[in-house]
Amino acid sequence: MDTKEQLKRFLEPRSVAVIGVPRRTGVGDNVFENLLHFYHFSGRVYAVNPNATEILGHRVYPSIKEVPEVVDLAVLMVGRAAVPAVVRQCVDKGIKALAVTAQGLADSDEEGKRLQAEIVGIAQSGGARVIGPNSFGVANVFNGLNTAFIRSEMHRVPIGSVIQTGLFFNSKFMLVGKGVDIGNTCDIDFADCLEYFEHDQDVRLIALHIEGIKDGRRFIQVASRVARKKPILALKPGRSVKGANLTQSHSGSLAGNDKVYDAVFRQCGIIRVADVEELADLARAFVRLPPMRGRRVGMLTASGACAVMAADACQSYGMELAELSPETRRLITQVSPPWARPGNPIDLVPSALIQGLGTQEAFRLLLNALLRDKGVDGVIFVMPTLATQKGTWDVSAQASDAANSFPEKPVVCWLSNPRLNGSGDLYEQNSKVTVFPSVERCVRTLARLYQYHHLCEEQRPEEATKVE
Amino acid sequence: MDTKEQLKRFLEPRSVAVIGVPRRTGVGDNVFENLLHFYHFSGRVYAVNPNATEILGHRVYPSIKEVPEVVDLAVLMVGRAAVPAVVRQCVDKGIKALAVTAQGLADSDEEGKRLQAEIVGIAQSGGARVIGPNSFGVANVFNGLNTAFIRSEMHRVPIGSVIQTGLFFNSKFMLVGKGVDIGNTCDIDFADCLEYFEHDQDVRLIALHIEGIKDGRRFIQVASRVARKKPILALKPGRSVKGANLTQSHSGSLAGNDKVYDAVFRQCGIIRVADVEELADLARAFVRLPPMRGRRVGMLTASGACAVMAADACQSYGMELAELSPETRRLITQVSPPWARPGNPIDLVPSALIQGLGTQEAFRLLLNALLRDKGVDGVIFVMPTLATQKGTWDVSAQASDAANSFPEKPVVCWLSNPRLNGSGDLYEQNSKVTVFPSVERCVRTLARLYQYHHLCEEQRPEEATKVE
Repeated sequence: MDTKEQLKRFLEPRSVAVIGVPRRTGVGDNVFENLLHFYHFSGRVYAVNPNATEILGHRVYPSIKEVPEVVDLAVLMVGRAAVPAVVRQCVDKGIKALAVTAQGLADSDEEGKRLQAEIVGIAQSGGARVIGPNSFGVANVFNGLNTAFIRSEMHRVPIGSVIQTGLFFNSKFMLVGKGVDIGNTCDIDFADCLEYFEHDQDVRLIALHIEGIKDGRRFIQVASRVARKKPILALKPGRSVKGANLTQSHSGSLAGNDKVYDAVFRQCGIIRVADVEELADLARAFVRLPPMRGRRVGMLTASGACAVMAADACQSYGMELAELSPETRRLITQVSPPWARPGNPIDLVPSALIQGLGTQEAFRLLLNALLRDKGVDGVIFVMPTLATQKGTWDVSAQASDAANSFPEKPVVCWLSNPRLNGSGDLYEQNSKVTVFPSVERCVRTLARLYQYHHLCEEQRPEEATKVE
Repeated sequence: MDTKEQLKRFLEPRSVAVIGVPRRTGVGDNVFENLLHFYHFSGRVYAVNPNATEILGHRVYPSIKEVPEVVDLAVLMVGRAAVPAVVRQCVDKGIKALAVTAQGLADSDEEGKRLQAEIVGIAQSGGARVIGPNSFGVANVFNGLNTAFIRSEMHRVPIGSVIQTGLFFNSKFMLVGKGVDIGNTCDIDFADCLEYFEHDQDVRLIALHIEGIKDGRRFIQVASRVARKKPILALKPGRSVKGANLTQSHSGSLAGNDKVYDAVFRQCGIIRVADVEELADLARAFVRLPPMRGRRVGMLTASGACAVMAADACQSYGMELAELSPETRRLITQVSPPWARPGNPIDLVPSALIQGLGTQEAFRLLLNALLRDKGVDGVIFVMPTLATQKGTWDVSAQASDAANSFPEKPVVCWLSNPRLNGSGDLYEQNSKVTVFPSVERCVRTLARLYQYHHLCEEQRPEEATKVE
């Protein structure tokens, strides 16, 4: 059976047995209950616990042996000492996919390392694959699968995540359309999951949280291929000495030399992110926005101060403020007082207030002009966060219309608020306009979109000359 | 009259005349209407517009001459060409505080520069001070003053802001308890405002947005003194060549050499922030949190992955993960499975789930132990964002109790969500616990709190030896 079929048992199981289901329900940490009543898993679920006979009106089986079918996936939620025996039972029953949640294996002492090796040996002898240990297991919003013991909001995002912390299942990151917490990575690893997501129609973007990669050669081989089909983002902490040591006690990973990781990511075409915020920014950007086909940023702003910030950020991220075409400059001149210089970034206020066009009409005219300009590859606008959504400063409809009229160019914005809030939703709900919490993050996002576009174009030089 | 008295007319006026009030109401951009019905300004307000006689049932005066008192503050909302004549009228009437909103002065062409010089000359001849031009004016949440032409939420925060963009009045930054947009800074400048806020009982923190400082010597003299009484944060964009050029056309400022600014801020003890997000983070932190008295960070986390991120961030920001005392280590050992290593950061999950203490009880015990530890100067905790606020993973009450029991140590957290949301409010509402959108920003904030504490201690060496 190839990796794809093996991973399918984990992510698209027709049936799941949860071994070690707690008896307590109603507080959100019972995976059996969550699958049935919170995530509404589309397949069959069996509860296993030798100390219970019934949970929520469902039969509980004393061991996996009594479960009336060979489930696609067994989730082992038992303490570390019990894992080898339960793995043996699963293997004996013919189960081929095992998610092991227990902590205290290679992430801890010598006994833990020994146990982990034993688990791997038993699984391999039965032809079973293992996710974990020290893992939250798997999640798939499309079929209601989530084996984490915390309830979390799931969103139908076309993102496949491979991570070494379950915490990322349990957030509003919106990173996990489908997710695999490979934990200590005793068997299933990054390359396996990349190969699976490569062909998964539900997945358009892949996000990695990496503490350590064991088989670097295979990773490079697979990732280099996949990254050119679907963008891959990677968060790789452990740069510091102390951080590297902690990866050892967290997931039993060798953090490795950070410079080597940097080089590997570059070689593969993986976009390395600085932190969880960039990860979340880019996940949203790649899902919502069209490619950024060049470095040239156009900007429309209600504050000249933000133009300065954008210029600094463009320099930091290798982007440039676009030179506007004579046509665009002519239009700006027409709607500006005589003393205004028609350049990029465009200050909205003189046209809106001094020339009396009104904010909405000035915004509409100028944003469309920027998007129409062939010298502009993508646009940032800055508007104030509104105390009330009614009124002349709400230009969300105009932004949405303009973005929809020029679907081939990304439109991003900052709403003068470093804490995202309801204003953002207003701008995002009916369009591809995407809101970020600072001008710098708008620029960084466009830069990463461009970086990825450039990677893909490198393979098609005949097209590259056309769009560059 | 000294600067303090002059600034008082701007920020605590008993009466305000708005010259150039638009006739249109109901869409949020009428300053006269906003002062009366949105901000509920506590003083008297007069509307001036030669083309109107009544707005919202209030008499409109054809010019400032007819206004029946010598107002404390006149806000000039007229086009650039009209400003000198109106300034003359104000001066003739004896008004001593003028806020000029017009764009197109030193921020634009030669004619604009000439007009600005003319404005300054007329004001000086009458002993009047000028804020602006190219300014949103002033704001003061304590008396309902806000002369920006956009409605914005105001919050009663003990923060005085001096900025060169009105956009920062109009956000949910919560930067502006009192604010002055000095715009082109033809007269009132940073040093004047710093001196005012130095003695303002409503202000505990000062935030600056700087495009350029004209009188560097005086700024250093004043800021060095004030920074040791109240923390001063500074955002200074314009590092790049293009950014520096844009400050010229935005506020008519000379951006100057960025390295010089860096040195000036260091010399004064001003905390320079990287961007609006750090500005907002630190504003919240300094207002909500006690000092960080050393570099030693304690951490309690639901994810070992975040421990790695924290270690990296500590290295970046000059902080260190605390060595725990034998007592604390003993407590951890007592509530952990035998294979767990009792170190810092503390992993919550083994105690909570494997030892069966439950999340809330384990969290309570461990957070209190960290705060009690004399080797820990401040604490970060990481918990999952919750899909539902009920349930065992909601530890907001425990966090609040612990933070209140140890009021001398800052407690900050990340809730596994890079977009701040309702979960944050839950943790912040009844305590000083302060939520940030990443582990890195938690660490950075503690580092800046420590940096400021260290600055203040430098002046008191006998105390410094005690707390270091």
